[in-house]
Amino acid sequence: MSENNLTLHTDKYQINMMYAHFLKGTDKAKAVFEVYFRKLPFEGGYAVCAGLERVIQYIQNLHFGEEEIAYLRMQEENYREDFLSALRDFKFRGDLQAIPEGTLVFPNVPLVRVVGSIFEAQLVETAILNFVNYQTLIATKASRIKQVAPNDILLEFGTRRAQEADAAIWGARASYVAGFHATSNLRAGMLFGIPTKGTHAHAWVQAHDTEEEAFRAYADALPEQVTLLVDTYDTLRSGVPNAIRTARLLQSRGKRMNAIRLDSGDLAYLSQQARHMLDEAGFPEVKIVASNDLDENIIEGLKAQDAKIDVWGVGTQLITAADQPSLGGVYKLVAREKDGVIVPVIKISGNPEKVTNPGFKDAYRIMNKKTGKAEADYLALQQEEDVKNGERIKLFDPIHPYIFKFIDNYEAIPLLQNIFAGGELVYKLPSLDEIRAYHAEQMKSFWPQYLRKLNPEGYRVNLSTALWKLKMDLIHAHTSM
Amino acid sequence: MSENNLTLHTDKYQINMMYAHFLKGTDKAKAVFEVYFRKLPFEGGYAVCAGLERVIQYIQNLHFGEEEIAYLRMQEENYREDFLSALRDFKFRGDLQAIPEGTLVFPNVPLVRVVGSIFEAQLVETAILNFVNYQTLIATKASRIKQVAPNDILLEFGTRRAQEADAAIWGARASYVAGFHATSNLRAGMLFGIPTKGTHAHAWVQAHDTEEEAFRAYADALPEQVTLLVDTYDTLRSGVPNAIRTARLLQSRGKRMNAIRLDSGDLAYLSQQARHMLDEAGFPEVKIVASNDLDENIIEGLKAQDAKIDVWGVGTQLITAADQPSLGGVYKLVAREKDGVIVPVIKISGNPEKVTNPGFKDAYRIMNKKTGKAEADYLALQQEEDVKNGERIKLFDPIHPYIFKFIDNYEAIPLLQNIFAGGELVYKLPSLDEIRAYHAEQMKSFWPQYLRKLNPEGYRVNLSTALWKLKMDLIHAHTSM
Repeated sequence: MSENNLTLHTDKYQINMMYAHFLKGTDKAKAVFEVYFRKLPFEGGYAVCAGLERVIQYIQNLHFGEEEIAYLRMQEENYREDFLSALRDFKFRGDLQAIPEGTLVFPNVPLVRVVGSIFEAQLVETAILNFVNYQTLIATKASRIKQVAPNDILLEFGTRRAQEADAAIWGARASYVAGFHATSNLRAGMLFGIPTKGTHAHAWVQAHDTEEEAFRAYADALPEQVTLLVDTYDTLRSGVPNAIRTARLLQSRGKRMNAIRLDSGDLAYLSQQARHMLDEAGFPEVKIVASNDLDENIIEGLKAQDAKIDVWGVGTQLITAADQPSLGGVYKLVAREKDGVIVPVIKISGNPEKVTNPGFKDAYRIMNKKTGKAEADYLALQQEEDVKNGERIKLFDPIHPYIFKFIDNYEAIPLLQNIFAGGELVYKLPSLDEIRAYHAEQMKSFWPQYLRKLNPEGYRVNLSTALWKLKMDLIHAHTSM
Repeated sequence: MSENNLTLHTDKYQINMMYAHFLKGTDKAKAVFEVYFRKLPFEGGYAVCAGLERVIQYIQNLHFGEEEIAYLRMQEENYREDFLSALRDFKFRGDLQAIPEGTLVFPNVPLVRVVGSIFEAQLVETAILNFVNYQTLIATKASRIKQVAPNDILLEFGTRRAQEADAAIWGARASYVAGFHATSNLRAGMLFGIPTKGTHAHAWVQAHDTEEEAFRAYADALPEQVTLLVDTYDTLRSGVPNAIRTARLLQSRGKRMNAIRLDSGDLAYLSQQARHMLDEAGFPEVKIVASNDLDENIIEGLKAQDAKIDVWGVGTQLITAADQPSLGGVYKLVAREKDGVIVPVIKISGNPEKVTNPGFKDAYRIMNKKTGKAEADYLALQQEEDVKNGERIKLFDPIHPYIFKFIDNYEAIPLLQNIFAGGELVYKLPSLDEIRAYHAEQMKSFWPQYLRKLNPEGYRVNLSTALWKLKMDLIHAHTSM
């Protein structure tokens, strides 16, 4: 089953760097890497962290099997046999800290930190980024959709337009974390315990001589779950009247029709007309499901026009995060072992946002004790004691340091949890429903101005004074070289 | 290993429709479904078909294991046990035809056709769309990039920004089909035999006290494959001079440095300066690799500014098809068995493009015998003989039927190949390199005006007169209901 071994789900340059370290004898030197993104997706005010469960599975299953070794042996790099032997014995033995799934996260805050030999830390870069980037992106997109329809039922319907099979299932899971209620993908349901929902397709109607016959047959088969798709021929002249007949038939059998589904046309107008027809016919409890290239903006627009839609089936736009299909998460070396000591390192760039925050550091959420709301995220070097002890700290904008304030009545919540220690899993994975509930709580701990869809206020991510000074010193040391 | 069983990689409504057919006794009725897209991606003039190998693997492995059955048993639909037994015995026994991977394809032409019982044909919809939509999208994007850099080396570098693991590997494969030369993803290389390439990351440089030391160590380890990333601190003041020192060192050992890589900044200016410095230092053969959010438009712009770049590492924009991250391929019922006869069916829509082309039909590429170039794609009902016999046919625009012409000196090449017959694979899968070579030939069989990146001429996809009449008759029959 080598196809499922994800150990070579990595860029070749990782293996080449591992090889070069191995030959140079520096492969066991300790390294500290951080995963973070620099810019929020969708011009939004926050992101929703996801991907950790996948990362844990990946780390636990890392091993080079014979097929992987044989493949590496035939590469043009002509790797030495002692290197291939070292890979055969490879196991992740490092530490990994991460922010739990469902947490609201912001630019430059480490979502994952890997502390291990440079050998192992280099190998895992690509896959960790792949998983965290995608799942965080989709959880964030789903959370935006949830915000415009907080009291409606949200269904993830995107599999056919997802970017291959893994995206479909992990995207369904990320959507559920952010408050979606169900997915259409049964494999996602089976693997993760997400509720699954399904209606029927146009093909069901087309496979019958008349729409009415098709609806009746569906109601015969699934009397408790009847949601009828009413737009195969003509929504208001054929679909809704036939659905009402089916509702009457079910009623005569002591059952209730669940819903109708609109999948094309003007969803505002059609839903209002259909609602009126259903109400007039005595079926005010029959719900209206809408689908067709929905996203947070279209849903908000439909609601503004008083569309009578109770359930939203969201596909393409969610599962691909169509308006921004990638989160630019990076994996950067921030500290390394030199002569037995961990020293901070920096990467300079002509683009100021791309200069890394150096050093082995902690990340805190500063909660205002009076309001119970998050005030800022705060990055500090590990040896700094003031924030740990709750002493007064200075919050200042790292780009514009003259903008600052002091805060003392706060609780500093460490964001990073211990996941692996010495290669052993030390974290108890919450259940998916626990993660989903935790995410809902998270949303409440932020002022709405940080969460709004359009033009949100920027949440502060600040560096401690000591960290900022370290960064400035390293920049000057390198640029004066 | 149930996690790898893709049988439940389907929407729940497929299972619900299968169930309803099963209860009604219509599950064995024959159905004909077509996969096609309605609109070309990226405002381009063509798409590149891909996904068939994945579809074949999927069909061959379809089966409901005990875990799948147990999962379905606990659904709220309360499926009957005889239905679950029927699933346990399920195997795909139908026919499947498809257009070979690498073929240029156009709107409304069936890429895949499934002819089987409605039971099996319904099950496979979601996964087939998922695979064909994504892989065709990426092959098309890669082909567009290939067109702006036909003589350069193209590397697929997108894994960290791909939408999860499957997208990374199948996207790497699709890119290779369309003319990319290699991928960074080792698992894609192992599974599909794609060449793999890797350089080193900023972390390699940061893991050393100086850039020069880092470069030298890398050259020691991989003297035959040295591509040095020169932008960790300062490209022109530090990176390129240190790379030149390394090139001299390699030269003194009888080796040659391969390339430098630029990953930030103004790639036009930096590549020109770096080229000049390398040439001056006596290394005109050292190539320049560029990466950093490249796509076909940026590459074209850099070339217009005479950037000195030999190798392009393309990541995010390719692997996510960022400017249009989904192909809207659909799976539509076009004919069904009724009273023992296959009859055409239609789906009407208020949107004229969404009305389906009914009937069991063939798809031909009409090749002009004089020019050797493709003239149009032609959809005809299976019983039509004129096109099969090469007789004069009328090509007319289905939306504007008054635009037409006759053609007689042509070869009509059937586009759909038999893949499965009665559930058995009857197709010999070409090797990946054969598919890639076939794709390159395909590109030559089209006039450049259909292929150009911006504002291409529309290639004709025409219906036969008989098919068009059938469509009109069915539309009128339904709208007068």
